Amino acid sequence: MQIRYLLNGALPAQDVARLLESSPPKERKLLWELIDHDKQGDVLQYVSEEISIQFMKSMDTERLLAISESFDDDDLADILQQLPETLVKEVLASMTAQNRMRMESLMSYPEDSAGGLMNTDTITIRPNITIDIVFRFLRRHTELPEMTDSLLVVSRSDRFLGILPLRKLLVADTDTTVRDIMETDCDVIYAEQTATEVAQLFEKMDLVSAPVIDPNSKRLLGRITIDDVVDVIRDEAEHSMLQMAGLDDDEDTFAPVMQTTRRRAVWLGINLITAFIASYVIGLFQDTLDKVVALAILMPIVASMGGIAGSQVLTLVIRGIALNQIGASNARWLLNREIIVGLINGVLWATVIALLTVVWFGDMQIAYVIAGAIIINLIFAALTGTLLPIALKKLGIDPALAGSVILTTVTDVVGFLSFLGLATLFLL
Amino acid sequence: MQIRYLLNGALPAQDVARLLESSPPKERKLLWELIDHDKQGDVLQYVSEEISIQFMKSMDTERLLAISESFDDDDLADILQQLPETLVKEVLASMTAQNRMRMESLMSYPEDSAGGLMNTDTITIRPNITIDIVFRFLRRHTELPEMTDSLLVVSRSDRFLGILPLRKLLVADTDTTVRDIMETDCDVIYAEQTATEVAQLFEKMDLVSAPVIDPNSKRLLGRITIDDVVDVIRDEAEHSMLQMAGLDDDEDTFAPVMQTTRRRAVWLGINLITAFIASYVIGLFQDTLDKVVALAILMPIVASMGGIAGSQVLTLVIRGIALNQIGASNARWLLNREIIVGLINGVLWATVIALLTVVWFGDMQIAYVIAGAIIINLIFAALTGTLLPIALKKLGIDPALAGSVILTTVTDVVGFLSFLGLATLFLL
Repeated sequence: MQIRYLLNGALPAQDVARLLESSPPKERKLLWELIDHDKQGDVLQYVSEEISIQFMKSMDTERLLAISESFDDDDLADILQQLPETLVKEVLASMTAQNRMRMESLMSYPEDSAGGLMNTDTITIRPNITIDIVFRFLRRHTELPEMTDSLLVVSRSDRFLGILPLRKLLVADTDTTVRDIMETDCDVIYAEQTATEVAQLFEKMDLVSAPVIDPNSKRLLGRITIDDVVDVIRDEAEHSMLQMAGLDDDEDTFAPVMQTTRRRAVWLGINLITAFIASYVIGLFQDTLDKVVALAILMPIVASMGGIAGSQVLTLVIRGIALNQIGASNARWLLNREIIVGLINGVLWATVIALLTVVWFGDMQIAYVIAGAIIINLIFAALTGTLLPIALKKLGIDPALAGSVILTTVTDVVGFLSFLGLATLFLL
Repeated sequence: MQIRYLLNGALPAQDVARLLESSPPKERKLLWELIDHDKQGDVLQYVSEEISIQFMKSMDTERLLAISESFDDDDLADILQQLPETLVKEVLASMTAQNRMRMESLMSYPEDSAGGLMNTDTITIRPNITIDIVFRFLRRHTELPEMTDSLLVVSRSDRFLGILPLRKLLVADTDTTVRDIMETDCDVIYAEQTATEVAQLFEKMDLVSAPVIDPNSKRLLGRITIDDVVDVIRDEAEHSMLQMAGLDDDEDTFAPVMQTTRRRAVWLGINLITAFIASYVIGLFQDTLDKVVALAILMPIVASMGGIAGSQVLTLVIRGIALNQIGASNARWLLNREIIVGLINGVLWATVIALLTVVWFGDMQIAYVIAGAIIINLIFAALTGTLLPIALKKLGIDPALAGSVILTTVTDVVGFLSFLGLATLFLL
């Protein structure tokens, strides 16, 4: 009773969505069934896509249709793209011809493009009318769409001409025409631009909304609003962190056991290859290890210091690439700096580690060997950390996903190879 | 010539700022000096705080004053808080009494609080006037402030009463009063709320701006706009990734060598302690390693698989905490799931690794030992990855910063201890 009241009355849809996202699978399903049918659509808009698709897959067409009415065009198009085709066909078939056409056109754009982000709830006006008429035209609406910060000016054939920001409209003389005060040098977005480009434009220009136009016909297709862009910005900023740990972008914190196990297993498997490569390298020096057991004790230090130094550089460069800061002109400077930083820190910590080694094992030779290996590995870490993500990016591979695995392989292999190699040369 | 034209004419301030951020120190200084004094203030608003403070520290008071005029109140307050006190006093002294008072009040709020994010450029109206008068009042302005999506309704004594969204104002009957159509159940922010809370509210409620009020007097203090909140959202989403690699939140990709070296050195030093703890554990089993050299070859696999599994869990939980998804009610479910996932993946990969070990070394005993150690380490990784960030959070320590170091220590120690310990028990 109490919870049913909370879900359907007291809590706004956004909070119910948060509650669903924070619940383990069984509770999630139970809670969902306690939500009134009327409110389910509202709630679904705010849960992550993975979860909403899961719920929608289990609905019949009629429920799906009823629910889809509370969705924004762009969200509905994203979700329909991921539902089974037969279901989608039924949903589309039951729409009015006009809605179906609009939905099919939205669904033709990839989810992570400007077309996939846009809504069609624009308010358009003609350039030749006066501000007075604009006011009268607006008053005919019962409410303007959310996030309306400007009216879009279009020609008779729907060609986009400019925008009239509300903050200009409200201070304008009522006798002037739209053409007199509209902004024609405003930022426009082409339907096939990537969501990343859209987010960068919004962040750079501090936009609340922006028109989306067809690059060929210059016709107005819709508009993108900051609330959808905020989601893109959050997803992109989280993307690198999640990918570096081999997690999915849309990872459900409370995914069920089997789903979680399967995804994690793949990542562990990939990393096992790395681990066996490192072990193979150690295996090459079996005789050396057999003679000087201190090497086995110290060798993880060399690999681990390289891994830490390398992943600092890697993280910095991955973020720099994501922020569009790194290009051909400054990559060389960055590489030079990292090599110098690696060298200085290498010498510093090689000295510290060598001293500790002398204290521990009382052996100057081993101290020299480990110092040399640390310096070599930190320089390789700097090289790999800088060049690897740049190279992966050029090859069209996500540096956040592949970067950390490859980097660890390099710092492990170089670490063991240099330490045990130098030991074999100088200690035996 | 060409570049001077680009900097001062062709490129908007945002692009010049991006250029500065993407330049190594020397080029950055050179470019800065090529920018006209008039434009420097505009550009500074868009560069990261670390860089703008660097430039402003080197200015005399007069320049600083001239430049500070192009800043938004909230940005200026943030920057003044970080400049040397004598400089700040001079700047404040040269302001008008009213501006000084406003600036001092803004500076009294921490940078990462609602008070630190707010601007004072509000448009306020009284509740008893008609919409017609509102329109006439607005027309007296030459332009409304950026990101104005609603007017703020206040009493004679400046007490906050509600908001009048432009999208309602524009469709309203001109004879109705503000009181009739204003929204009183709107989201308000108290000056001392954290920036994180503000960002969560904006994201949840899809706001463009929100009023900031004094919790005691209920007086309107200012407003926060989505452009500043987007920065908070990006910073927070990036925060975990940067902290996990021991990088600063406001890390300058092109910081000079010595600054970079110093910061990285600290992180390497902390991790060196971890590495020596792991080595100490290995050292306990010197005799065992002396007898079975295969153990030295295989031991990194156990530590590395634990580290990978643990950091997946750690990343997921850190993100869950940041998104406010994890609390007392679901932490236990999460822990259970992670232990089960750890167990299943432990058994799976222990089997694979055991088979590979038999193929490589032809020794069933070692295969059993490594399989056991892998299962133990993956379960410990699940335990630590889940409980550690929750515990750190409770202790008021940033889980993203301390989490990865402590986790690695645990998975290294448990990995080496279980593998070499089991080997000592069963192989000798």
